[in-house]
Amino acid sequence: MSRLDSFIRRMQAQRDCLNWAAGQVRGMAGPILEIGLGNGRTYDHLRELLPGRDIHVFEREVRAHPDCVPPAHHLFLGDVREQLPRATRMLGRSAVLIHSDLGTGDHAANMEMGTWLGPALDQLLAPGGYVVANQPLDVARWIRLPEPDGVPKDRYFLYRAAP
Amino acid sequence: MSRLDSFIRRMQAQRDCLNWAAGQVRGMAGPILEIGLGNGRTYDHLRELLPGRDIHVFEREVRAHPDCVPPAHHLFLGDVREQLPRATRMLGRSAVLIHSDLGTGDHAANMEMGTWLGPALDQLLAPGGYVVANQPLDVARWIRLPEPDGVPKDRYFLYRAAP
Ligand SMILES: C[S@@+](CC[C@H](N)C(=O)[O-])C[C@H]1O[C@@H](n2cnc3c(N)ncnc32)[C@H](O)[C@@H]1O
Ligand code: NI
Ligand code: NI
Repeated sequence: MSRLDSFIRRMQAQRDCLNWAAGQVRGMAGPILEIGLGNGRTYDHLRELLPGRDIHVFEREVRAHPDCVPPAHHLFLGDVREQLPRATRMLGRSAVLIHSDLGTGDHAANMEMGTWLGPALDQLLAPGGYVVANQPLDVARWIRLPEPDGVPKDRYFLYRAAP
Repeated sequence: MSRLDSFIRRMQAQRDCLNWAAGQVRGMAGPILEIGLGNGRTYDHLRELLPGRDIHVFEREVRAHPDCVPPAHHLFLGDVREQLPRATRMLGRSAVLIHSDLGTGDHAANMEMGTWLGPALDQLLAPGGYVVANQPLDVARWIRLPEPDGVPKDRYFLYRAAP
């Protein structure tokens, strides 16, 4: 399979997982977290799926499309290693949906990140909250969920915190 | 439609147009040109679609995935405004398929580029050759072709030079 085919499948998996998770949290009160803004495509998608909801965005350096830059008061600007603990102090365990897509192309770096990222996100996740991630995350109180219908296995990862 | 949805549709249109055009030129002798390597996804796709064929790549600065960097003798490194005329001197009007994806997010810059890019590519295109482009290009001896089945209109552009 070419990198173009594989990329399209990853984008579709990402979208289908976000659509599914947004459906789950539509009736739950609490903010949404977008970890990694990038060009802002998934932020835009989340905004459309969950209009009017607070979406807090974490990004080292904003390079998104101008239409997809979150308001300053919803932006945690800087390295997530510092910003996630800061957000925990401000928001506590309140997020009902966290989308994490920090990955680089570097597999080893992503795996290393997985070891501290899961626990750091867990500090922000409400009981029964959902995590949609581009990489496996290992947190004892999270249950890995099966992919929504039609999404190939292991392209995107879904978790739910114990209620 | 969110930017994520719109992006997925653009990628699918790109892939479907490349698949279709590769089918057209499989039996035609002559090189393929990839204008704008980027991360190398479409280069990888073209390599897979047309194995063993010469694919000449134009790119200002190579930042592709290491697996998707073309051999040095197939790379026209530098600004296409200089490299396309250089390629014309080396290859003449021999290319049977040109994929052009130089676009940035800047609509005005893309449109300005269209005015000189079409004629410059035309100098490299064999009679009856195909152009697949991310933007409209206006060349008198090219005919715009309809999108392949299932591809939405005006996301990607197909042309054929008069035979
Ligand atoms: C959108 S990317 C190509 C993506 C590629 N088709 C893919 O799908 O992987 C566009 C590329 O064109 C290159 N580019 C843009 N303008 C250029 C110019 N005037 N000369 C040479 N390269 C240029 C950029 O450096 C960038 O890598
Ligand atoms: Ni708010
Ligand atoms: Ni060669």
